[in-house]
Amino acid sequence: MIRYPILRGTAGVKRPSTANRGMDLEAAINATNDYYAENDIAYIYKKPIPIQIVKVDYERRSAARISEAYYKIPSTTDYNGIYRGRYIDFEAKETKTKTAFPMKNIHEHQVLHLDHIVRHGGIGFIIVAFTTVGKTFLLDASHVVEFYRRADEGRKSIAYDEFERFGHEIPEGYIKRLDYLKIVDSVYFSQ
Amino acid sequence: MIRYPILRGTAGVKRPSTANRGMDLEAAINATNDYYAENDIAYIYKKPIPIQIVKVDYERRSAARISEAYYKIPSTTDYNGIYRGRYIDFEAKETKTKTAFPMKNIHEHQVLHLDHIVRHGGIGFIIVAFTTVGKTFLLDASHVVEFYRRADEGRKSIAYDEFERFGHEIPEGYIKRLDYLKIVDSVYFSQ
Repeated sequence: MIRYPILRGTAGVKRPSTANRGMDLEAAINATNDYYAENDIAYIYKKPIPIQIVKVDYERRSAARISEAYYKIPSTTDYNGIYRGRYIDFEAKETKTKTAFPMKNIHEHQVLHLDHIVRHGGIGFIIVAFTTVGKTFLLDASHVVEFYRRADEGRKSIAYDEFERFGHEIPEGYIKRLDYLKIVDSVYFSQ
Repeated sequence: MIRYPILRGTAGVKRPSTANRGMDLEAAINATNDYYAENDIAYIYKKPIPIQIVKVDYERRSAARISEAYYKIPSTTDYNGIYRGRYIDFEAKETKTKTAFPMKNIHEHQVLHLDHIVRHGGIGFIIVAFTTVGKTFLLDASHVVEFYRRADEGRKSIAYDEFERFGHEIPEGYIKRLDYLKIVDSVYFSQ
């Protein structure tokens, strides 16, 4: 029997590269969003990655080859869309740590972005997957803003316990791989 | 007196390149969105341009140089955001033609995107600037979808007259360069 290397969820096995880090959570969210869209539940999609284009080889845009470009620090979040008439916006991150989520994984502009969304009547949050622990949480933007401000005063992370206390665990499943709208229903639409 | 070449709004003068085509409308919308954000009226922003990345030179993402990439056909629109608690989504295009807006300027996925937005309770439209005529219109997504379907049957454009009939002219100004939310107020929030 061939034993393929297990790439995640095991402390002892090192992943071969960090290039695809975040792809598992991303794949789960994308599959879930496809399910939501196909069943007309919600329309939520991933934004393009922000790129600074420096050099393009041909003038005609349809045949253009970008030969020099760089990743930009994102000023918004990864995902946004619409659900039950409300604007939905979130950032999704994985972490291998067991005890805390390092704040450096979220950029200041993204926190400000979430704050803007909420102030104008939208729903904003982060989804953080603790891959070693095997649990994924939704944390409302108000807490993200609060914890981000606290980071200025020295605390550079959000403790796992704080996700358990202020966040909401997202159930994992087979078809709806990460049914976060179930949590959105109970947190933002109940009462 | 030196007469600088007038680059737009004159039929006889050819623009030196099409590379910046659309930048004037884009600049006007971006400046207007900045005004809206600074005055806490709305939070509407431009999405990154979708790029297909083929080759990246360094493994470490923070120092990565993208050395081969291509423009992708956009599957969503240029702008989205939130206003008075509602999801706002639109595509902005310029045309130099006087009589009609060619449908090829809008991709099928963008029309489907606008349709999704509207079906889930959002506000979707296109903004089209007729630069030679000097008028800019907002046209609701329902008409865009209708005219796009008609394009399958042979009509490949939306007539200028149809913008005057079904659309809404957007006033141009100095501080709020293109105050499209004034139109959004009257079209989507009145009654």
